[in-house]
Order: sequence, then C-alpha cells, then structure tokens
Amino acid sequence: MSQASNILYDERIDGALPEVDREALIAALRQADPELDVLHEPERLRPYECDGLAMYRTRPLLVVLPERVDQVATVLRVCNELRVPVVARGAGTGLSGGALPLEKGVLLVMARFNRILEVNPLGRYARVQPGVRNLAISQAAAPHGLYYAPDPSSQIACSIGGNVAENAGGVHCLKYGLTVHNVLKVEAQTIRAEAVTFGSDALDAPGFDMLALFHGSEGMLGVVTEVTVRLLPKPEVAKVLMASFDDVEKAGKAVGDIIAEGIIPAGLEMMDKLSIHAAEDFVKAGYPLDAEAILLCELDGVESDVDEDCERVRDVLARAGATRVQQARDETERARFWAGRKNAFPAVGRISPDYYCMDGTIPRRELPRVLSGIEALSEKYGLRVANVFHAGDGNMHPLILFDANVPGELARAEELGGKILALCVEVGGSITGEHGVGREKINQMCVQFNSDEITFFHEIKAAFDEEGLLNPGKNIPTLHRCAEFGAMHVHKGQLPFPELERF
Amino acid sequence: MSQASNILYDERIDGALPEVDREALIAALRQADPELDVLHEPERLRPYECDGLAMYRTRPLLVVLPERVDQVATVLRVCNELRVPVVARGAGTGLSGGALPLEKGVLLVMARFNRILEVNPLGRYARVQPGVRNLAISQAAAPHGLYYAPDPSSQIACSIGGNVAENAGGVHCLKYGLTVHNVLKVEAQTIRAEAVTFGSDALDAPGFDMLALFHGSEGMLGVVTEVTVRLLPKPEVAKVLMASFDDVEKAGKAVGDIIAEGIIPAGLEMMDKLSIHAAEDFVKAGYPLDAEAILLCELDGVESDVDEDCERVRDVLARAGATRVQQARDETERARFWAGRKNAFPAVGRISPDYYCMDGTIPRRELPRVLSGIEALSEKYGLRVANVFHAGDGNMHPLILFDANVPGELARAEELGGKILALCVEVGGSITGEHGVGREKINQMCVQFNSDEITFFHEIKAAFDEEGLLNPGKNIPTLHRCAEFGAMHVHKGQLPFPELERF
Repeated sequence: MSQASNILYDERIDGALPEVDREALIAALRQADPELDVLHEPERLRPYECDGLAMYRTRPLLVVLPERVDQVATVLRVCNELRVPVVARGAGTGLSGGALPLEKGVLLVMARFNRILEVNPLGRYARVQPGVRNLAISQAAAPHGLYYAPDPSSQIACSIGGNVAENAGGVHCLKYGLTVHNVLKVEAQTIRAEAVTFGSDALDAPGFDMLALFHGSEGMLGVVTEVTVRLLPKPEVAKVLMASFDDVEKAGKAVGDIIAEGIIPAGLEMMDKLSIHAAEDFVKAGYPLDAEAILLCELDGVESDVDEDCERVRDVLARAGATRVQQARDETERARFWAGRKNAFPAVGRISPDYYCMDGTIPRRELPRVLSGIEALSEKYGLRVANVFHAGDGNMHPLILFDANVPGELARAEELGGKILALCVEVGGSITGEHGVGREKINQMCVQFNSDEITFFHEIKAAFDEEGLLNPGKNIPTLHRCAEFGAMHVHKGQLPFPELERF
Repeated sequence: MSQASNILYDERIDGALPEVDREALIAALRQADPELDVLHEPERLRPYECDGLAMYRTRPLLVVLPERVDQVATVLRVCNELRVPVVARGAGTGLSGGALPLEKGVLLVMARFNRILEVNPLGRYARVQPGVRNLAISQAAAPHGLYYAPDPSSQIACSIGGNVAENAGGVHCLKYGLTVHNVLKVEAQTIRAEAVTFGSDALDAPGFDMLALFHGSEGMLGVVTEVTVRLLPKPEVAKVLMASFDDVEKAGKAVGDIIAEGIIPAGLEMMDKLSIHAAEDFVKAGYPLDAEAILLCELDGVESDVDEDCERVRDVLARAGATRVQQARDETERARFWAGRKNAFPAVGRISPDYYCMDGTIPRRELPRVLSGIEALSEKYGLRVANVFHAGDGNMHPLILFDANVPGELARAEELGGKILALCVEVGGSITGEHGVGREKINQMCVQFNSDEITFFHEIKAAFDEEGLLNPGKNIPTLHRCAEFGAMHVHKGQLPFPELERF
C-alpha cells in the first residue's frame, strides 16, 4: 500500500486556504491595538518556522506577541472578521508539529504570558499564565514544600499552555497522571473572542467535561489564557533502582510483574541497548553497556514505605531474571540515572543524522509482543530503532534513526513509523500517549478512529469554531484524507497490513 | 428574588415538545423489530415514572426494553425518523432526575444489558454491558484478587451505564477517582444509530477527549452499549478510624490537616450530629451520640504502611481537637462503621417525611466557612439540614428535611437547596460532585456557567444530536431559562444574594 507523505499534506493544507491580504491584516491589527507587537519581517519570522518537530517547517504569515488577555481577544476578533487562520504557540517544544505555522495564517505566540499569578499553599493550587514554564511552577511552589507533578522531558523549557494543548505527560505520570489530571481550571478565549472558564477550584462535575475537552485539543477550540494547576506535597524521599537485563522481552515482562505486585512506582522507564549506549556516551549516566535493556524504577513517599517497596521491587526483578540491580546511592547518582533517560532523545540525535520519535501507547501486557514486532519492522525497513519507554504506563517512544540526505530514507522512516503506530492500535493501544497528534500523526488518526468518530471530532470543532480558523489541518484528518490514506481503520482486530499479522 | 419551581419547569419541557402519534410509533417499532419488548399499558409504565429523585414523576409515553445492540440502534433510528425524544435509563437509582421520563418521549431501559463479557486479569480490565450492576463487577473480579474502585452508596443496585452517564463517585473516590478515572473505553450508539468507540485498552490521548465527554453527559450524546472498566488489585488491608468532635468546624479543619500531612485516605467522610443520630437509630453502627460531628477515615494498602499511616492520622486528629478516636477492631466493626455512613440517606428518611439531598462541592479549605453558612441558611429558612460529606474531596451532601404535605415546604426546601449550591459556587466549588445535574439542578447551571459557556454546551450537544432528541430538558438549561431564573451567574466573586455576603 502506498502511503501519502505527511509533507505533501502540509503543502495541500496551506494551498487550500484562502488568500490573505497581508497588509490589510497588519493595518487592521494595528488599528485595533496600536500597542500590539506584530512581527512581519522575514528574518524575524524565521525562528517561528517550526516547533520541536523540526522536520516540518513553514514560515508564518505574521507573528503576534500579545501581552494581555484583551490583546489576545483583539487578535482573535480581527482574524475572525477577516477569516484568517490562527495557530497558537507556547514555547514551541511540542514534538508533533501542533504549533507548526501556516503560511496563510497568524502565529499567536503566548510567550509573554509568563507570570505566576498566585501560589496558594492552603488550597494547594497555583494560578498561572499559559506561557509560564512547567518547571517554574514547581520552583515557585518549592518554598511551601509543594510541586507540580507532570514532568515532560522538556520541562525546563515547555510552557503550561502547551502542556494543556497537548495533554503532556512525563516520567512521573504513571503515579501522578497526565496534565488533565493535574489541572483544576482553564480560562480561554474563543475565536469569537468570548471568555470562557471551565473547571473550578473544587471537585467538578456539572455539564459536559469541557475541561477535559480542552486538554489535548491543540489550540483548535480556543486559546488558553490562564491555568489553575493542582500542587502536590513533595514526597519525603525518592529512590531509584536500575535493573539490567540480558533480554529486552524479559525487561518488558518485569514491568508488568512490578505493577501486578500492587506497587505504583513514581516512574518506571525502560531503555534498550541502542538508547543505553547513546545516553551513556552523551551524559555518562553510569549505565551498564553490556545490558540488552535496563529498567529505571523510582519509588517515592514516606521513607519507611519507600524502603519496603524497594525490597519488594528487588524481589520481583530478581524473579524476572534481572542480571543486576543497583540502587542509586545518593541524590547525585539518582539525578545521573535520570539524566541519561531524560537526555535520551538528544543522545540518539548524536548517533544518527536524523531521528523520528514515535509516541504510541499499548496495554502493558503487550510489551514483549510489540517489542519483537518493532524489531521485525526495523529489519524489514533497514532502519535502526532505539527504544525508550515510559514502560509503566505502556507509553512507547521508539526513535527511528535515518538520514534525510539519503534519498527515500525520510519517506521510509515515516512509513515505518506509521506501521509501528498501526501495531500499537492493533494490540489495543493508541497512536499517541503524550506528544499529541499535531500535523505529524494526522494520517494515523484514520487508523485509530472510524468515519463516524472522526465526524464527531469535526462537529465538536465546529461547535467552537465553525469556520475552522483555529489551527486548521492539525489533530483531526478530513474524511477525504482518510480515504486517500487507505481508510486503514483497525477495529475489532482486522488488520490492513498482512505483514503485521504474524506478531 | 423569586425562584421559579423546578416542577413548573418539568411541565413546560413536556409542553414544548411536539405531539407524538403513539400508535404510529408502536407500529413503527414493531415493524422494525417484532421481537422488541415495548410496554405501553399504564400499569406497566408506572414503575418507570421516576428515578431515585422520586419528587419528580412523569409517566413515559412508552417503555422499550432492548436486549441487543442492534435493537438499541433500531429504537434510536425509528425515534430519530419520527422525531420522538428518547430518555435512556439504567437501574433508575440516580439522584438528580437524569432518567426522569418525558410524557411525549420513549424511555429506553437498558436493564437487560446485564452480561459481563470479559474479565481480563492480566490486562486488569473488565468488558461489561451497561446494565451490569456496579457491585457485580467487583464480585466477578474477586476470584482474581481484583475489584472496580468507584463505589456509589447505591452500588448494590446502580448500573455501570448510569455510573458513566452521571460520572458517579463514592466513598473511595478520594483515593481512586470518579467513574471517568476508572473507565478505559465506551461503545455507544448515537441518535443517528451510528456505532462509536471512544478510549482504548491503553493510555489514550489522540483527538478530543470524547471518553471524558461521555462521562456525566446524562445520555444526551449517545446511548452507551458497552463499557470497559479498569480493575485494581484489592488492597491487602483496610482499616478505619472514627474520630469524635465536640464542634463541627473542628472536624472540618481536621480534614484539611490530614490531607496536608501528605496522607491520601481511601475514604474520609464526615457526619454531623443529626446524621449520626439518624444513622445510629437505623443501623446501630456504634456511633457516639454525644459527638457534634464524626470523621471516618479509612486507610488501605500494605499492612505495615497502613499501620504507620493510622498512627500519623491519630496524631493529626489529636492535634485537631478530636475528643475520641476509635479504630475498628475487626472487619465486622469496620463494616458496621461504614454501614452507618452508607445508610445515612435512608436513615434521615426515617426521621423526616421528606428530604432533599444536595451534592455541592467546595475547596476543602472552605469546609468550616461553608458549614457555618449552611447553619445560618437552615435557621433562616426554618428547615433542618443534616450534613453528610465525602469530606476528603470536598463533596458535600447536605440533606434538607421537610414535609411535602405542609404547604410551601417543598418550595422552601428547593429554594434553600439553591442557596446552598450558590454558596458552594461562591467559594470556588461547583453544584454537583457526583449525582449529576439531571432535571434537578438545571437552574443552578445558570449559577455555575455564563451564557457563552452554556452556549458551548448546547453546541456540543448539537454536534451529537442536532434535533435535541436525546434526553431533552436535562443537564443544560436554555439561556431563556437562565434569564428567567435571574441570570444568577456568580463569577469573580460577585454574589447575587446579599444575604450570603456575610459568610
């Protein structure tokens, strides 16, 4: 089956958009608010051409940098009147191209919304603007012994507005949940410049769950202008165990065994040999170079509980065939163990001209089967795959290594990535755990959902944004697109790829 | 301010619906599926006149009892063609009138969908039909050492489809979350008889969060035909502490103190004197009759952890001024302590001709303030209020005692209830924690949300059900309705009721 390139799709999206009178738009924005910062010179637009998925690039028509909520409303109102698409962007660290600009659209950069409005230790929440960096929230809460739990690897740079837009995860989401589980309330502006608030400071239930709906909606429903996050007390201690395995499937099975023991680690991560070597070369994490796979298992809480759980995990690991189990001796070693994992992506970037990061999820019990499936696909396509997982919650990040300068390799990497995601769906999982759909996985949405389901996504979108002006071409494919892609919806175990059937 | 009665509203909803040719509808249903069980005789319709909120009653036009998914699709298709409204109903235990029938609508009773399709101990999930009782899932999972966590007080009778429709909670939701946090996947039929599946067997994120959207949607988006729930390993031990207080506000403060200690109890419940006496008279739970309030604090997990946490909770309770702390000596006493709490509603039913159960949520730190506010409102309205709370997550169930045979008391109870909910919203909470909006709290939605927000609810509804045939008149008020009610939206601390300002 031929697979249309995502890149062709990019060109088509922009091609289908109506022409915009750029000068008239600039004039209208300046008239509406003379203080609004509008960038239009090509050299000033260049830094905004891509987000963290740098293989897709488009120069935006304009960049606007509002500083106040009324300026966000102004931009949206003017764009709505002139029918100009708007792409909202936070820190631009997203890995699925959710903030990829449009050449006929405005890029609304929320970077200046960087104030922490309130840290309330009694109510255990923080009210922040969307451009506040993820880690800055925990830093502001630290004097009260509190922190914000979700920790994407990019947490030093990524912003909370982007975390909401992509429903970001992280190493500690196994125990503490995704962004949606740690946000109490969002305020947003719609394309019609209406102010809406969903959620509350308390347990919330009335009406439809619009708070959840905004999480992962990739700026297609509204532009988030304020976020109230839940703060948690910092665990008294955190300890990490590193287990080595001589076989990657044994490591996969050990993950299920730990959870089956009734233990919920704060983090439970897996890396295969290729990732281990890349990370070790890069950050000297102290990883065992002879292992086929390692597991990193962090336990946090009250010291006596943690010590007891460490013993239980050691027992499970021994029974599962770990060749060696090391406990980080102190905070420095613990930080080093995690530095290897958190820098695994850039580390792989050093051993290959290019890499393509997948983000599928699978039921935990399918880990061994999916690992052998990926290995077979890797051989078939002649491309190396490094495996780094949030193993505890079945969220896989296979990194496909390729060289974009070798003709055909990018297309082959994209095709291999699509097959890996189809395999995830086939075993009962999904095409994204925490990176979002964005522009990148728009085709794979056709694998995950049938046409009725996709139609509902479009109708939800239309409820908020009838003209489709907010971030068009992301997240939800057109039905036409799915038909072209081969309408490869996998449902009830019917597989479109005969070559996957043996897994 | 005068407050229109909810009961008048009921009549109006039915009045506004188009007339239905009942005989033609019966004929069309029988022709479409001769095996479909259709009830139309008045004496067979009577048991379906109300759900758990028995103060509202309407005889449905017809009751249909499908047994298969294709029959559900048939009913929906026929009703859609003939433009007849459809109200779906599970076990009918809901407390907000979400399954209240319409006299010009079909009541679609899902009681015969009572099969457990799969219990998968390795994947830790169960696939069940929507009519399966909540407790039956845990019973089926018990041989594998697993259970389904959310436990509404009605769990012996309520069905999982209804739990999804109302996003049901329960005593253990503080630690284990609401229904939405324990469901992996739903399959549903839309009013256009399309089959849709949202969620997956793994961590799921792509597209809009339709799985969350279905939770609490009260049958307004589709009719759920299958639910995949998460199963958890049964905790090794569970222990419960009962603390007595000579002052209800001290008990309220102790709740916050326990959570501030970093302990997450499996359940943390509070009852005031009136509830204690009612429950003790009814089930002989062993409650202290001299206490102004009690807290029940359950801790579960591994035995050594639980013992240690019990000691920590005892310390907190002592510091918070508890006059006495008892630990249940064995499983029998533990069950008895909980029996009092779980039977608090019927117990109050024995000491008053009628009672009206509220379901507001508040930020935990506001408990003392809201308790004194309820006391002042109770005096002002001359109606007793018994307080039973899921205190740990700030979900309050004030029970307003009244006598429907005393002219004006029902209206006064409804008005008092409305003011209590407005107080909840005022302090940053919401009008429902776990019982849903249904017909009951339709007016209070105007307090919680502004007109733009309510418009989005209508648009989401229209995306799934343009003609508004699924459960019309529940969950979401018309803007006209809100205007009539006094457009009492409380936002940014502006209160419509001067008499509440002193709290």
